[in-house]
Amino acid sequence: MHQSDELPKPLSDNLMTSAPRHNLWICSGDLPGLQRHAKIATALRNLSRMNFCSQCGNPVVQRIPEGDSRLRFVCETCQTIHYQNPNIVAGAVPVWGTQVLLCRRAIEPRLGYWTLPAGFMENGETIEQAARRETVEEACATLRNMTLYMLVDVPHISQVHVFYRADLVSLDFAAGVESLEVKLFEEDEIPWSELAFQTVRRTLECYFSDRINQVYPVRSEAISSSQPMKTS
Amino acid sequence: MHQSDELPKPLSDNLMTSAPRHNLWICSGDLPGLQRHAKIATALRNLSRMNFCSQCGNPVVQRIPEGDSRLRFVCETCQTIHYQNPNIVAGAVPVWGTQVLLCRRAIEPRLGYWTLPAGFMENGETIEQAARRETVEEACATLRNMTLYMLVDVPHISQVHVFYRADLVSLDFAAGVESLEVKLFEEDEIPWSELAFQTVRRTLECYFSDRINQVYPVRSEAISSSQPMKTS
Repeated sequence: MHQSDELPKPLSDNLMTSAPRHNLWICSGDLPGLQRHAKIATALRNLSRMNFCSQCGNPVVQRIPEGDSRLRFVCETCQTIHYQNPNIVAGAVPVWGTQVLLCRRAIEPRLGYWTLPAGFMENGETIEQAARRETVEEACATLRNMTLYMLVDVPHISQVHVFYRADLVSLDFAAGVESLEVKLFEEDEIPWSELAFQTVRRTLECYFSDRINQVYPVRSEAISSSQPMKTS
Repeated sequence: MHQSDELPKPLSDNLMTSAPRHNLWICSGDLPGLQRHAKIATALRNLSRMNFCSQCGNPVVQRIPEGDSRLRFVCETCQTIHYQNPNIVAGAVPVWGTQVLLCRRAIEPRLGYWTLPAGFMENGETIEQAARRETVEEACATLRNMTLYMLVDVPHISQVHVFYRADLVSLDFAAGVESLEVKLFEEDEIPWSELAFQTVRRTLECYFSDRINQVYPVRSEAISSSQPMKTS
């Protein structure tokens, strides 16, 4: 069902649903979608890379500004300090009766692995709107009754993952351009060893655990880089 | 007590605890702390401003990249797409018995107004760590028993404000460099008309409301730009 034999070993600390997209090189001009996304994975190693000031175009240096305690990229010409801050990844647990909707990724990182629909929150939207939009983009699915459920700090990649519980409006769903397939799973069908990210795993574990008593407290936890991804 | 006569009128839609700090001009070289922070307030109008590619130093243009649906700053020379995403502001409701700790701001925006300790989450930390650090920086105070309490989306400035309920470890607190004074308030002493930000007001309203029954659900809401700041 999941082509698990064709997949590489699960990663122990890759928790990204996509690359933190500022500061990344993405060749959009002449590459089709999938290759473009592969570029993102490569660019992960350049997370904080910055060479030139975005205001005046002169080279930047890395130093701790006066009155600050952290290394920043600073322009010595126009004095701009270029701050870099964590990103929010917004996602959903789309529920249909006793089943949960998962997407098999058509893009890196974690191509071929299963995930809850999720992606980077954009400027000008709420977290809930971001989760709803990502579900449309990845699963062509519409959600209702969205309830905040899970916050997971992923500090080693400077991300916060936020998941909402939600009901699917209908069975009208399909693979979006970032998904190979989209499918409903009963709890005992969840492909635990083929999940893309630890935050997705934790969210599903909590969801099925909470579902026993139908009580879903908002959960908040952190995942560290040294925490291995369980495979069963 | 609060020097309210000296303060300008409350703003209706300024919800920032500080400026979204990437893309801002901050002259750190020859200005003391307060003037530097005043620069941040001025730079708010340039939130999304970007002139040059931070990778190759050539000019950027604003366009919708292939396969995207949003305007981005794009370098036509090296093809880098410069994404901009929302920031997280992390804060706390520091409690001592029946009292709550507030800080009177020594910096713009909202200089002279009262706030809960809060500020921009930094790369590499959890939201809770950010709230704890900001409380140290602004109120020289240490927190314990931190519990996630409030998420407020502020989409028109692309921020998410997250507040934790927490106990003060002791009465050992003092004004940090960003505060004019730090003080414990009983509920009926809260300077409602002199609060700095709507998210702080909403968090305090919810806290005192929930305190009646000692039940504190995690709350999630959004504040829109058209929502006026109440003054009583």
